[in-house]
Amino acid sequence: MPSVDPRRLANAIRFLSMDAIERAGEGHPGTPLGAADIVTALFTRHLKFNAADPLWFDRDRFVQSNGHGSMLIYSLLHLSGYEAMTLDQIKRFRTLGAHTAGHPEIDQSCGIEVTTGLLGQGIANATGMALAEAFLNSRFGDGIVDHRTYALVGDGCLQEGVGQEVIALAGHLRLGKLTFLWDDNRITDDGGIDLALSDDMAARFRASNWHVQEVDGHDIDAVSEALRLARLDPRPSMIACTTVIGRGLPHEGQRAAHSARLSKDHTDAARAALDWPSAPFEIPEDVGTAWREAGRRGAAEQEAWQARVEALPADLRCELDRLREGRLPDGWAGALHAFKRRMAESGHSDHGYKISGDIVDLMTEAIPEMLSGAPDLEGATLHKRRLAAFTAEDRAGRYVHYGVREHAMGSMLNGMAAHGGVVASGITYLAFCDYERPAIRMAALMGLPVIFVFSHDSIGIGTNGPTHQPVEVLAALRAIPNLLVLRPADAVEAAECWEIALEHRSGPSALVFARQPLDPVRRGIDNVGADAGNQCRRGGYVLAEAAGGPRRATLLATGSEVAVALQARALLQEGGVPTAVVSMPCWELFERQEADYRRSVIDRSTVRVAVEAAVVQGWERYIGEDGGFVGMTGFGASGPAPDLYRHFGITPERVADAVRTRL
Amino acid sequence: MPSVDPRRLANAIRFLSMDAIERAGEGHPGTPLGAADIVTALFTRHLKFNAADPLWFDRDRFVQSNGHGSMLIYSLLHLSGYEAMTLDQIKRFRTLGAHTAGHPEIDQSCGIEVTTGLLGQGIANATGMALAEAFLNSRFGDGIVDHRTYALVGDGCLQEGVGQEVIALAGHLRLGKLTFLWDDNRITDDGGIDLALSDDMAARFRASNWHVQEVDGHDIDAVSEALRLARLDPRPSMIACTTVIGRGLPHEGQRAAHSARLSKDHTDAARAALDWPSAPFEIPEDVGTAWREAGRRGAAEQEAWQARVEALPADLRCELDRLREGRLPDGWAGALHAFKRRMAESGHSDHGYKISGDIVDLMTEAIPEMLSGAPDLEGATLHKRRLAAFTAEDRAGRYVHYGVREHAMGSMLNGMAAHGGVVASGITYLAFCDYERPAIRMAALMGLPVIFVFSHDSIGIGTNGPTHQPVEVLAALRAIPNLLVLRPADAVEAAECWEIALEHRSGPSALVFARQPLDPVRRGIDNVGADAGNQCRRGGYVLAEAAGGPRRATLLATGSEVAVALQARALLQEGGVPTAVVSMPCWELFERQEADYRRSVIDRSTVRVAVEAAVVQGWERYIGEDGGFVGMTGFGASGPAPDLYRHFGITPERVADAVRTRL
Repeated sequence: MPSVDPRRLANAIRFLSMDAIERAGEGHPGTPLGAADIVTALFTRHLKFNAADPLWFDRDRFVQSNGHGSMLIYSLLHLSGYEAMTLDQIKRFRTLGAHTAGHPEIDQSCGIEVTTGLLGQGIANATGMALAEAFLNSRFGDGIVDHRTYALVGDGCLQEGVGQEVIALAGHLRLGKLTFLWDDNRITDDGGIDLALSDDMAARFRASNWHVQEVDGHDIDAVSEALRLARLDPRPSMIACTTVIGRGLPHEGQRAAHSARLSKDHTDAARAALDWPSAPFEIPEDVGTAWREAGRRGAAEQEAWQARVEALPADLRCELDRLREGRLPDGWAGALHAFKRRMAESGHSDHGYKISGDIVDLMTEAIPEMLSGAPDLEGATLHKRRLAAFTAEDRAGRYVHYGVREHAMGSMLNGMAAHGGVVASGITYLAFCDYERPAIRMAALMGLPVIFVFSHDSIGIGTNGPTHQPVEVLAALRAIPNLLVLRPADAVEAAECWEIALEHRSGPSALVFARQPLDPVRRGIDNVGADAGNQCRRGGYVLAEAAGGPRRATLLATGSEVAVALQARALLQEGGVPTAVVSMPCWELFERQEADYRRSVIDRSTVRVAVEAAVVQGWERYIGEDGGFVGMTGFGASGPAPDLYRHFGITPERVADAVRTRL
Repeated sequence: MPSVDPRRLANAIRFLSMDAIERAGEGHPGTPLGAADIVTALFTRHLKFNAADPLWFDRDRFVQSNGHGSMLIYSLLHLSGYEAMTLDQIKRFRTLGAHTAGHPEIDQSCGIEVTTGLLGQGIANATGMALAEAFLNSRFGDGIVDHRTYALVGDGCLQEGVGQEVIALAGHLRLGKLTFLWDDNRITDDGGIDLALSDDMAARFRASNWHVQEVDGHDIDAVSEALRLARLDPRPSMIACTTVIGRGLPHEGQRAAHSARLSKDHTDAARAALDWPSAPFEIPEDVGTAWREAGRRGAAEQEAWQARVEALPADLRCELDRLREGRLPDGWAGALHAFKRRMAESGHSDHGYKISGDIVDLMTEAIPEMLSGAPDLEGATLHKRRLAAFTAEDRAGRYVHYGVREHAMGSMLNGMAAHGGVVASGITYLAFCDYERPAIRMAALMGLPVIFVFSHDSIGIGTNGPTHQPVEVLAALRAIPNLLVLRPADAVEAAECWEIALEHRSGPSALVFARQPLDPVRRGIDNVGADAGNQCRRGGYVLAEAAGGPRRATLLATGSEVAVALQARALLQEGGVPTAVVSMPCWELFERQEADYRRSVIDRSTVRVAVEAAVVQGWERYIGEDGGFVGMTGFGASGPAPDLYRHFGITPERVADAVRTRL
């Protein structure tokens, strides 16, 4: 480090942030001013990074979980020399099109590892990153994948349930390279933290087996020493940094410093208080130089790393390159196609989740970086089987027992995907999807290739009753932009949908499986049979064309109800109504097809009836205002699945009737 | 208590549960067998209840949060003499139409206080009940509303984030009449608890200021003594009861005892092990008598309570009756109507959340049992104002600072509503709705009259960016059955929608407000003006009919986009296109109108275009396949709101264009 007073380095963050916030007319000064010393200690003395190569695979990850204080990370990135984070960007804080959004939006090429702002999720992402690192470290060894994950954490992140979930799980899994830096400023948006919190937070973390230190968050040397000690401890570390929110402002330490506007009077007073004579947006030369040097600190380390990578055995090196680039290994698709053919030929019928479990079995063998897991539903979902558990002792395990913590699972999957080098997937019941939903939305917003798997997808779960019957969840998932919702009808479609999800890199997929057995629907149907390519890629396709004359009726269905539609078709055909069945496993993909194709599949001149054991919402797009829908109009009930299908009238007869009354 | 060995009382629970589970062919025996002694101690010695009057207002509340072990509560209720819980019901466990559903479904007239099964929410409900009790106790005094709340808790509930949230908040609020009985059996569905948890749970609770005791959960006297001590401590109490899961089964203490099927061999072995010679579903006479006596234990106490109630001053007694019956006080509607007229006359324009805050101000004055609160968003939502906070010291406070804990807030609101005697409402940003969503779904499933308020409902929030812009949340809420989603367009509609929500008793309401100013749309429009009654009750109505000829175009909109539609109408009318604007504040209510009315509002012979700053999903129902939609197709962006509306093309010009291209 050059001999610049580190407090001036921290003040550079403060004033850049203040100036940008004053200029924007808004934007939480509390965190950038309060936590400037903490991150100065981290970025100038500990964090392994190279601003010239933000994508260096073995960089330490830094997540600002308290995303509302986003000017902190923007200032840091600018000062450290990240090319994309220009001074102009800083000046355009919170304007349309700038990198400097109100909350940090993922942009790894300029140092923003994940999108944060919905509290608690950032530290869960960080925990997922630390897990991915530990897993890859077990494969490639120290010196190759061997970095730490740091998260700057506010009070809100620690109050949120998802934050509490990952505290417990990270402690349990002993993710020793994970460090939380808690900006302990005793102030939240409402005022003093004691309005809603009286936890002994250190004791809370210790109860989950964390290494806990408490330091003065404005003492850069003390924070630095704590960071050093954190590295030496095998447990995850929480460093409670006592700080004054909005440090430097006339109203520092008060509620108003959290998010109230800054005026020129405020920033002038801060300049006087902190002895900072520079004009707005100007950084003293020695300070700027010192920061840029800090940003280059890791360059030599990266070179050494590169040399170690080049010295790897060729196969291991190729493998590392493959993982870094997110390419799947050769052979996975072939294995899946072979499975699909086998299913088509044997007419295999099995529980939906079991079919998915079979595919996961195959894929975890073909894709060594694929991780699976569930929140305490191993037995009910069968996605572990031959996989070993990822534990504190065995980092090579590829199945994570998340405990009963759906939100942590989802947010950790996002962190794993953002880290890279792994294929992140996790399964739970579709009825528990709401617990995981905040993470699914963020995966879609970030465009992360996470595979969210769900089983027990309808009243077909039976006797567990309405709490466990997700009548509205399909619609709610389909409402999320940039999410592929895939609900396959049988083992053949299941293989196709898994293929789509594994290939899909620009956003998450939700794979939705029934609990009940899925009978084969793609067997012996020539034009869409197993050898006809991946039909599900088109989102919707004619599974069975009308026979005996021009099509008069079109039945649309997904998942377990495709079989119902086929039976209804048989009734209608018998009655002389040429009827087609359209399988619609993925609306999002169907919408991307050309209009001609869509029109040919969903023939508007025919009577259209959709059947799905869920609410109608959204189906109107395909059935029109006069179309029929056979499904659910309210919540389910507790009883055996066949009783429920009859009770709620989701039967071939009702579908056929819905057609006949419209003919 | 009669002189029956209490272990035999507990065994009666075990064998009823076992027999029912064997008969049903499924249904988690682990909890009813493992926790039988715990609840025997509670129900026969401590719980204040009267099985002959399950709705006694001052009964202690008991919540079985680990709802998968539902046979426990069914056995308890049957044995204690709850009339509706007949032996026939026990035998019909998990069959369609029985009270004995797979998971407990709310049915207070037979002793089931809330629906549980989605883990963690039950203990949050219980925390809400304890809060409601403390509030009402402050109003009516000891001896009138003065009861305790007990929750039986499994490991899953303590792992879930929402469980962790309420541990922190209940400790903070010092809800001393709340007791958790933790069935600490070290086994979850996946196997040993150490697969995913190594917390020191006692330390975890102590860190949140709970009174913690650890006892042998099979020692009824020890549990009973702990319950006695819990009553003496001013803090909430957690009693960790060490138990053996599936106690009595050959595989007790093992994973298989959690939820695996029971055979006759199993139950025979248990009969031998526990010395229980009775035939299936038969209860020894002395045991049955003792249980029924336990169920009558509270009768004298209820009589004494009734006498105290009758001795109350007349006004207080009337007030108590009113609250018990869930009737709103005289005058509230008048106050709301006066506000509405004032708004209509003044043409008041204000931020959406501020208008709602004004209404909450009024209503909290008119409705003394109305509680408000937010997860650390007091300043941004303005729903506290003149209200005092509900705190450990001030139980009469009517605003709850939930901390940054949306899920806890929602689930606690459900508990308050289930408790009765209060009007439960809470507000947060619509983008944080996903965190609260699991509770909203449960409120809808239970039919509880909770008022979930949301602000900052679209890209109109501006610079905070896409994380905070809920483009898909309206659709996701509308997908939930039995939930009124109300999105008012101005202050007049806001008053009407609040009126609807306050009157609505058979399910929850979601009131959705813009951040940006809502200009008046109901001013000076004769037929739907402020004096024309509550137009929003119809869900959708013609706000401005076409002029200058028969209607050729219909514009549909909600909330802040109604103003956009009105401007578009002006453009179209100027261009000679007679255009109507339909305001659609509540789809659910609109769907309940007669077909003739709906057809007259949404004239299918006209060109239809909807405008809403959200995804299209669901609008197809109203605009048809050829209708237009002006809204969002993906996530938002960070920038000033007016820039965003232009950027995403949600403008009067675009709406008018969408009509013109279709004419």
